[in-house]
Amino acid sequence: MNDLKRLYQRYETAIECEVTSILRSGWWLNGVAGKRFSANFAAFIGVSDCILVANGTDALELALRSAVGLNDEHGREVIMAANAGGYASCACWHNDLIPHYVDIEQGSQLVSVRSVLEAASAETAAIVVTHLYGGVVDVRAIRAGLAEGGLSHIPVIEDCAQAHGARIHGEMAGSLGDIATFSFYPTKNLGAMGDGGAVVTSNPRFAGHVRQLYQYGWSSKYYVGLPGGRNSRMDEVQAAILNVLLPDLNSRNEQRRAILGRFKSATGGRLKFVDGGDGAVAHLAVLLCDDRDAFRTFMKERGVDTDVHYPVLDCDQIGWAALPMKGTENLAISRASISRVCSIPCYPDMTSDEVEQVCKALGEWEAM
Amino acid sequence: MNDLKRLYQRYETAIECEVTSILRSGWWLNGVAGKRFSANFAAFIGVSDCILVANGTDALELALRSAVGLNDEHGREVIMAANAGGYASCACWHNDLIPHYVDIEQGSQLVSVRSVLEAASAETAAIVVTHLYGGVVDVRAIRAGLAEGGLSHIPVIEDCAQAHGARIHGEMAGSLGDIATFSFYPTKNLGAMGDGGAVVTSNPRFAGHVRQLYQYGWSSKYYVGLPGGRNSRMDEVQAAILNVLLPDLNSRNEQRRAILGRFKSATGGRLKFVDGGDGAVAHLAVLLCDDRDAFRTFMKERGVDTDVHYPVLDCDQIGWAALPMKGTENLAISRASISRVCSIPCYPDMTSDEVEQVCKALGEWEAM
Repeated sequence: MNDLKRLYQRYETAIECEVTSILRSGWWLNGVAGKRFSANFAAFIGVSDCILVANGTDALELALRSAVGLNDEHGREVIMAANAGGYASCACWHNDLIPHYVDIEQGSQLVSVRSVLEAASAETAAIVVTHLYGGVVDVRAIRAGLAEGGLSHIPVIEDCAQAHGARIHGEMAGSLGDIATFSFYPTKNLGAMGDGGAVVTSNPRFAGHVRQLYQYGWSSKYYVGLPGGRNSRMDEVQAAILNVLLPDLNSRNEQRRAILGRFKSATGGRLKFVDGGDGAVAHLAVLLCDDRDAFRTFMKERGVDTDVHYPVLDCDQIGWAALPMKGTENLAISRASISRVCSIPCYPDMTSDEVEQVCKALGEWEAM
Repeated sequence: MNDLKRLYQRYETAIECEVTSILRSGWWLNGVAGKRFSANFAAFIGVSDCILVANGTDALELALRSAVGLNDEHGREVIMAANAGGYASCACWHNDLIPHYVDIEQGSQLVSVRSVLEAASAETAAIVVTHLYGGVVDVRAIRAGLAEGGLSHIPVIEDCAQAHGARIHGEMAGSLGDIATFSFYPTKNLGAMGDGGAVVTSNPRFAGHVRQLYQYGWSSKYYVGLPGGRNSRMDEVQAAILNVLLPDLNSRNEQRRAILGRFKSATGGRLKFVDGGDGAVAHLAVLLCDDRDAFRTFMKERGVDTDVHYPVLDCDQIGWAALPMKGTENLAISRASISRVCSIPCYPDMTSDEVEQVCKALGEWEAM
């Protein structure tokens, strides 16, 4: 699905130089590379603060904790889609919050703005919008709707784990809500060579909270000022690598978009690609297809790997069956889509021949 | 306190070779380096299972969750010392468990076996023993006492974050309890060049739980089988580095012990070193002294850095004041020690001249 060796080869010289420099420095956590990357990434997204953490799931957990608090007076429900892999649900339960699932739009597979606004109430602690597959939820519309309903106090958390550099109406994902989270898992549009994550915000209070929570709640070393902290740091080695990759993020996103564009040109009948909007960044090339098993076998026979993101709705995970949740009865589109979504390879280091091979296979399936 | 550049320089060739090899492979999480290190480390400790995680605090959290469960019938209290930096307390609250603090022995600063056994009851969910400063708690004595009291069901969790390779009565720390945790924070006796941790156990049920919990509770990719999971993985780069360092752990522990031995020879009057037993591994050289502020200034004037591990008891942390806890009224020795503990530099890459410089300063203080 994604040959990460090629990513490394493309940046080999710069990465080896940076990694060696960090290792030699003897300073491997909370150092200059992290400072540099967090400043650069905050500037890229257009926010004042970026706190680097260990991974994207921790980022969601800490963002929720900073925005909601452990004892919020405004209810304990967090509105979210159920089709985004479970990371936001995980983060909720670790904060003793209750996921309130709402349905999605079929064409984009993104959470439905209308469903979010219908679910918002005095019981709502926060809204997590996941910019799934690189598409972007219309956060401005959600915030306008909340304001109309007198619910402006509800924080909107953008989960940008799949949407580094994505835009909507010209505005950058991660700068639209109250606080946003990123994962730098290796396959991401901006990926480290190990785990990493970030919380970004322009809200100084939330930033201040996260800056304590990511390291035990310390106000200064060994002195705890805030409950609910944990250890969630990004290694300097990973920050240095991300610093090498960040300047090319936009151009590599363009390559992803171009590849997805070629796939789209080869389809349009039996297969329909999920469309995350004009500013989407094609983190995954996801299509909706009937007879998915047959399609996957068909592709495999033509040398094309496929995957499913994601095979189970959060609310249907066996291991989470006993946990508190709401909204599971109103997920018609989510349920109808779960057996139809299928991801095909889409990453900037694919060769043109490989893209052509996928297009050809797609065309054959369409023609059958 | 600890010049980590020297550690890197000593292993530079091997580490650069291993790190480059991992980066080039394009496989940066859950790969061959992690498999190799976890097998080697399990063999070193003498247990059947080792699961690598993101850091030592996560290791404690996941070990507790695997051993206690989220809804254990045997009470919700976790017996522990209050002087160990707060990591176990953190892990408790993230499991909705209640720290039950008990007192320590003055000479070793380790949790008192008698206090642990007096506190154990039907309300006890688990016991965390922290092998502080490289000293080793007599876990066998605790288990024998529990058995006598009909409380053998209570799991004993060893926190070995400061005790890699330490022994008691010839037995290895980490193999004495039901499950044990390690941190590989850079300054540890076995340290990575970033964050890392591990959970080790010979209990197949606990191992099975941790193996799911460290990655979202997945029974297989994207399918959640167990609630309470999170993302806590060790990067392959860090596992590869630990693989380089592990074979020298015992000899480097000997170097630490020799340095601490020289310090001890230079003192014995006003200053008294904490003594963690014959098999202790001198993670820190900690002494008990009156007039600590004056002592630290005195040492600084002689070019010797000092630190305090740890300046605040868990139960006295301002940020945790509102959280549930027990036993805070019976901590006489912990309270008497907290203003007296002081750490001086002790790491294998200190030069003999540097050790001599510290000895000389200690001698001058003693003679005053």
